[in-house]
Parts: sequence; C-alpha cells; structure tokens
Amino acid sequence: MRRKVYVEGSRPDIRVPFTEVVLTGDNPPVRLYDTSGPGSEPATGLPPLRKPWQTGRTQLASARAGIITPEMEYVAVREGVPATLVRDEIAAGRAVLPANVNHPESEPMIIGSRFLVKVNANIGTSAVTSSIDEEVEKLTWATRWGADTVMDLSTGPHIHETREAIVRNSPVPIGTVPLYQALEKVKGDPLRLTWEIFRDTVIEQAEQGVDYMTIHAGVLLEYVPMAAERVTGIVSRGGSIMAAWCLAEHRENFLYTHFRELCEIFREYDITFSLGDGLRPGSIADANDEAQFAELRTLGELTHIAWEYDVQVMVEGPGHVPMHKIKENVDLQVELCGGAPFYTLGPLATDIAPAYDHITSAIGAAMIGWFGTAMLCYVTPKEHLGLPNKEDVKAGMIAYKIAAHAADIAKGHPGAQEWDDALSRARFDFRWEDQFELALDPETARSYHDETLPAAPAKTAHFCSMCGPKFCSMKISHEIRAAGMKAKSTEFVDAGGRVYLPVTPTA
Amino acid sequence: MRRKVYVEGSRPDIRVPFTEVVLTGDNPPVRLYDTSGPGSEPATGLPPLRKPWQTGRTQLASARAGIITPEMEYVAVREGVPATLVRDEIAAGRAVLPANVNHPESEPMIIGSRFLVKVNANIGTSAVTSSIDEEVEKLTWATRWGADTVMDLSTGPHIHETREAIVRNSPVPIGTVPLYQALEKVKGDPLRLTWEIFRDTVIEQAEQGVDYMTIHAGVLLEYVPMAAERVTGIVSRGGSIMAAWCLAEHRENFLYTHFRELCEIFREYDITFSLGDGLRPGSIADANDEAQFAELRTLGELTHIAWEYDVQVMVEGPGHVPMHKIKENVDLQVELCGGAPFYTLGPLATDIAPAYDHITSAIGAAMIGWFGTAMLCYVTPKEHLGLPNKEDVKAGMIAYKIAAHAADIAKGHPGAQEWDDALSRARFDFRWEDQFELALDPETARSYHDETLPAAPAKTAHFCSMCGPKFCSMKISHEIRAAGMKAKSTEFVDAGGRVYLPVTPTA
Repeated sequence: MRRKVYVEGSRPDIRVPFTEVVLTGDNPPVRLYDTSGPGSEPATGLPPLRKPWQTGRTQLASARAGIITPEMEYVAVREGVPATLVRDEIAAGRAVLPANVNHPESEPMIIGSRFLVKVNANIGTSAVTSSIDEEVEKLTWATRWGADTVMDLSTGPHIHETREAIVRNSPVPIGTVPLYQALEKVKGDPLRLTWEIFRDTVIEQAEQGVDYMTIHAGVLLEYVPMAAERVTGIVSRGGSIMAAWCLAEHRENFLYTHFRELCEIFREYDITFSLGDGLRPGSIADANDEAQFAELRTLGELTHIAWEYDVQVMVEGPGHVPMHKIKENVDLQVELCGGAPFYTLGPLATDIAPAYDHITSAIGAAMIGWFGTAMLCYVTPKEHLGLPNKEDVKAGMIAYKIAAHAADIAKGHPGAQEWDDALSRARFDFRWEDQFELALDPETARSYHDETLPAAPAKTAHFCSMCGPKFCSMKISHEIRAAGMKAKSTEFVDAGGRVYLPVTPTA
Repeated sequence: MRRKVYVEGSRPDIRVPFTEVVLTGDNPPVRLYDTSGPGSEPATGLPPLRKPWQTGRTQLASARAGIITPEMEYVAVREGVPATLVRDEIAAGRAVLPANVNHPESEPMIIGSRFLVKVNANIGTSAVTSSIDEEVEKLTWATRWGADTVMDLSTGPHIHETREAIVRNSPVPIGTVPLYQALEKVKGDPLRLTWEIFRDTVIEQAEQGVDYMTIHAGVLLEYVPMAAERVTGIVSRGGSIMAAWCLAEHRENFLYTHFRELCEIFREYDITFSLGDGLRPGSIADANDEAQFAELRTLGELTHIAWEYDVQVMVEGPGHVPMHKIKENVDLQVELCGGAPFYTLGPLATDIAPAYDHITSAIGAAMIGWFGTAMLCYVTPKEHLGLPNKEDVKAGMIAYKIAAHAADIAKGHPGAQEWDDALSRARFDFRWEDQFELALDPETARSYHDETLPAAPAKTAHFCSMCGPKFCSMKISHEIRAAGMKAKSTEFVDAGGRVYLPVTPTA
C-alpha cells in the first residue's frame, strides 16, 4: 500500500511530503521522494504555501548571508541532508532552488550535483495541436510520475492563458523559453524581434510566476558560422531564432548585450537562469564540436555575471552525444561554469531509433547524471516525430526516473540504494505485493505478472511464470538456506575448506 | 524502401545478406546487418547452407592452423573487416564463431570485442505456458528484429521437440542450458542429477545442432556459502540447481570434475562453451561480491582448459550491477579469461523498475558493450514478472539493438556511425520517408509521426508537429544556410572577426 505522509520541519507550515510504501509483515515502510503535490482543482489552483516565507531576498543572497530560508529547510528534509549543506551549495552556486516569488504554490526543491538527480518534463501546446486543459492534465500527470520541474514550451495561440493555468496548478517549478512567446508577438518573424519586446515578455512571464527561464544568450554572431557545416545545423529552436537574428542584423545577440538587464529583472522575482545551449549538437556527428564548446565558454562567462546579481544559474547541455564523448561535456561545463548545475537534454547515445528516443537518451542521461549533471530533461518516444500525448509523457518520465535513480546509486547518494534493496528483498522473499508497490510503476508491474499467472494464489506463490515451481532459483536458494547451508559451510570450512578442492577437471 | 541484397564471397555459395535501405533522390543506399535469414516454412526448415563447408575441424582448430574457413570469410564480409582479422581473433580465443556441424542452416556470425556487439534473445516454453508453434514464431520474430543468437530456455514438456523445431528454422546460432532438460529427466529433483544423465542430454542436444551451451561449471562447493548472506541469494537457475546438488552431495560440482569430457564432446560437434555465471548478482546490493568474482576466477581456469581441446569459449556475466561497478566486471573478465568473449545479461543499473527492465538494463548493456562485452543477452519488460510474449520480445530486441549500436559507436567500430549520419542527414533535409526507413523500427516511427500530422503532404513538409512551421529550428537552419551564411561569415572573418566582439554585456 502507498500513502502520502508529511514530515514537519522547525515550523508547522514546513510540511514535506513523501510517498510511504507500507510493506507486509514486519518489514519497515519505505519512504520515497514525492513530487505529486497536494492535488488541485484546476479552476482554483493550489494554495500559496510559500507566501509567508518571502523576504524580498533571493535564495542565493540569503544563502550568501548565511541564512537558512524555510525553502532551504524544506529541501533539506526532502533530500535527507543537513540544511547547512543546502545553504552552502546554493551560496557556492553549485545548486539552485528555483522559486519565483509569484509562484508561491510550488513545493521547494533543489537542483545540484550533491543532491538527488532531478528530471524535467516538457509539455506545451503548439500551433498544430493541443489545448489548455490537456496541458494542465499533462502537468499533473508528469508530476504524478515524478517530474521535478516542468517546462511549458507552448508555441501556439493562448500562450499566456496556458501558462497561467499551468503555474497556478503546479507544485513544481515551471520553466519557459520566453523567446517563443516573443516570437509569437512578432508573427513568427525572427527579424522583427527586439530587446524591448523580449524584455516585456520576460516581465509578463515573471509576473505570472515562472521559476526559471531558458535564455539563449550564448549564441554569439561569431559562433554561427561554426555550425554551417554540421550534419544537422542548429537544432535548438531558440538557438536558430537568435542565429537568424544575429546574421540578418549582423549584430551581436541582444540577449548577450542586454544580459545585465535580464539579471536585474531575474533578481527582482528570484527567477533562475537556465542558460540555453542554442548550439547543442542535434546528431552524433556534431557532438562536442567547436560551435558547442565555444557557446559553453560564453555560458560560463554569463554564469559569473549572473552571480554578481545574486541570481541563480543553471546551464543547459546536449543533446546527441555518443557515450565516449559524454564525460568531456560535464568536465568542461564544471570547469567553465564554476560548478553551476548542469541541465542536459538526454543526451541520445545514437540517432538510429526515432520512436525510442526515451531509451536512446536514457542511456546517455544515466551516464551524464552519474558524471555530475544535476537535472535531466526527459525525452519522450515522440521526440523528432510529434508532440507527446499523456502516454508519451509517462514513458518519458519512467525512462528518466530510471536514469536519474541509476545515477543516484552510482554517485553513492546516501539512501538511494535503500529503495533497490527493499524491492530486491521483497523479490527474494516472494512478497509479490510488496514488490509491485515498491516498483516505479506498480500498476504495470502487477498487470505484467497477472498476464501469465492471474490467480490470486500466484501472488503469494514461491515461484513465478518465468521458471515455474520446479526451476525457481530463488526458491532453491531459500531451500539451500533453510537446509542449514550455513551450518554445512561452517563444517566444511572447519574441515580445512579444501577437502575436495582443488579438483583438477579430468577427462 | 528496404530490400534484401546479397554480397558474394570468393565462392558462389558464400552469399552474405544485408538489408539495403534505398533512399530518395541521389542519396546513396545504406546497408544494414541482417539477421532475418532466408525465410522458412516451419514444416520443412531452412536449407543446409553450411553443409558443403564442413571439414571435421573446429573453427578454432582451423584458425590456429592459419586456415580461413568459408564461415570466417562469410563473417568478414558481414562485418566489413579483413578475413585475416576474423581468423586471428578466433585463433587467439578473443572471438567465437558458434556453428555446430549439425546446424548447417545457420548463417555464420562472430562474437568478439573487435566486432559488432551482438544481441541474444531468450525464448522458450515453461511448465506454465507456451507452445512449440509460438516459440518458432518468437524465434522468427526475434531474428527479424536483429537477434544475433537465440537461446531456447524451454523447461516444460516437449523440450526436445521444441528445440528441434527451433534449430531447423533458425538462421542464427542457437544456445541452450542442457541442465534444464537434464533436470526434467529426473522429475525436477536436483539431488537425482548425475553426470551420466547430464552427458547424455548434452549429446542429445549436440546431435540436434545446438551451437552453444551454458555450462555452470564454475559453481564450486566452496563458493556456495559465499552467497548465503546475499540480499537475493543465487538467482541463476542453473547456478541454484548445481549449488543444491553440491551441498546435498557434499561433493564438487560434476560439471567441473567432468569438464574435460565435456570438452571432448564439444570438440566433436564444434559446440561453443558459454560458461555460465551461476553466482551472478541478482540485485544491486550483491554486485561484484566475493561469490561472483570467485566463480569468475574458475571460469577463467575452465576457459584455458577448453582451449586445450580446440573448443571455443565465451564467458557469461551479470546481471544486476550499478553503473560505477560495471567496468570492473569487464576488466577482470578479460584478465582472468584471457580475452575470451564476455556475454552479459544486461546488467540492470537499478532494481526499482520491474516492467521496465529492458530500459534499466539497456543502460548497463550499452556501457558494458562499450567497455568490451561482445554479446548482450536481452532483457524484456517481463523480466522478473512473467514469460515474454511477442511484443515483449520486440521491446527487448529494440532496447538491446540500441544498446549494442550505441556501444559500437562509442568503440569507434568502423562504419557504425554511418547509419546515424545517414538518418540525421535525412532528418535535417526533411526527408521524412528516408528517416522512417532508416529507423530501427520504421513502422512505429511512421505511425508516431502520423498520429499528429497524418496528411500525406506532411511527409514532405519542412517542419513537424513538434514546433509547427514557424518555429522549426532545422527549417531556420536551412534558411540561414541558404541566405548565404557562409558568405557572410567569410566577410565577417575577413573584417577581423571581432568587429562586434567581445561586447561586454551591459545593463
């Protein structure tokens, strides 16, 4: 059985949610990180949890002043780490706590390499398809499956209204790419974009409560030609828009030239930068090339500027990268960006499997998470092909929760492996219901089991349909243990341990 | 369009199949490795392709004698490498070419770290479910999706007949675990097993044409207690059977003591050993433990013994291993087993996702393949829960072809990335049909695209449903290129390259 429990902090309004998996017998319950929020009526939105905590200072300014904010304490309880670690990592710029003052509905969370690896889910309407209700439903669905943040990438009509509905109903930080809406305002013509239109769009979104924004300020005029001979050119929408603008105007990217003004706006709302990698590779062939790394150097420069303004920063990364080139990305990002959290899209480890890019990219995502990436942007089976529906959102989330958790284990994150161990013990003990409840997706695990052995007794059977009763290795393992293996083995070792050994194999 | 083509070797009966993907316009066709076989009528079976090539010598003996057999030449054409490399790798024991003289229907293939990473699919009836026809259908289905070998793990009634149908219809090498059938012969009671019963079972299967057999000869009596305190004990069926036998008899594993007799039988049919890892870890908690590595040392010893008999050997590996412990497995196996091919089951990088273990394990499989594992045993979504049906077989195969190909790219296997590049070029050029045809699963890629943009014109549209026409980054990339970006950039560089740069961002 699963139930939601809350752990209270130092004040009664700090109540941190967990999913508690109650196990059978005297097995202790297992607590899992919970992103599903308190549940909302879309018409009214969520309660403004964080309203009483606001001080007018950014989280970074507070951390630098040595203050542990209620948000930091909340995060510490959530992650099972000391609050001082949370504060110190934020102060050093190695972690961000995205929390727009105008999104008090969000439950605090942290993104940084010392914490659990996070997963972002992209949703959003497009000119071709989707409605506001559908997007709010996808938001709720994504957080149910563990999305730590959600990006609203809407590009069609009703961008403002869609975003309003999403922010008001989101228990997780919301990210956007303001450039998309700015472009809508100029009827989709990049050449009519101006700093003023962009700035006003940022302020409009800031007022609504967007917690982090992707800003493609690293696409410099001189870098654009570096992408000319690529197999897949520029694949970032924001990147291509800014590249087109730079070339047509033959001027420097206005996001770069006005970056300090952006910092001032971001500071006012405590919005976190997500510095966009507009020149990320869109194919294995283009990975780790000159264009990509030139932009990364500029993102490093911008990271340090944002920090001058007490504005939090994370840095976006690729994309499409073969396994042997993944680590270089993290190492270079850490070096150039002073340890600011890395936030990558996959990367896909091969280009050959459209319709399965949640898998091609889960491979790269798990690895890059292990190497130190703080947040993974999910990829759904529809990547490169169409807009994800609900089932695609779920498939992407599951693949990425797997990748993130595998990374947590490999990093030795305290407590991460307890979940695996609890599930494996349930498996070994033939506690089928416990195994299902501990699974990332209990329903599907249960339904797969029932497909071959549907009868209720099979749920307590000491075997499964894979081997049947006679061949079950775990059943035999138990019999070995029960038969006094340990006694026998002690006797065996006492007798010298080599009575029968080594026996040279003979014909 | 896809079509099957054949490349002829030095003699007319060496005809190596490829899938040729014919692209639109003047784009050159792409040739893909093809495991689907010539197609068979289950009632009659496949033609005995390799019958005329047989010499009575094993492939290893031939290679050691400096001979390039027709099988080796076939493999060289198939892999696009010199035949001398094939011969030399086999001679050194670093590659195997599993080809029982009684399975002349198989198309030669090679397993070794210098060649393309291979994928094995497990099928087979159990006491609880499945029929012979169904298993032959799964075999054909698995090879259609790229299975390089298939293991028949049947455990229920009609084991002999099921295997006969599978071998006669299989264009790929067939592996088995003879212990399962031997155990059936003694009504499932491990304690009634004898060397004689086992030997006769091996000969029965050898006569039928099984190409490689898993032999759990490394589960020594003294190792069994090492697994006593594990979270998941012994999870290999063969391993647990032999452990039970060893403990009950308090004698050494008869597969170990009679190993040289097995070598003589294997040599007679040119059967390849797949040395089973009966003590592989069944959970993250048990990875890389004393029991696992003790057994691996014994498998190394047995590898060298098999080589004395001119018998080919591969060595099985785990299982469940967190990412940071994967490489140690390969390095130790290479060292202890003299470079004999490693053949691993996954490994799963986390235990928390039953119903998605094709994904948890594709992560580990891709990495271990990159590190040098020669063949990956697939895991289906039904792992730990039930027997795979056709859809599960496909899901497992796709996940593992992704993992294997990602590993080929990371290893820098010659030609591997061409497939990715061809697909990415098709993507960048909006050649939708070419992109679908080049996809690992063309039908699914096409259907996902059609879900949002079903109209035929959308197949030639220079955008897709993800961004719509106005925001398509690749469309903008093309426009940039067309607008003379290169001319502009040259002009820019000629003008000093820094006319506008560096512009310090200002407020």
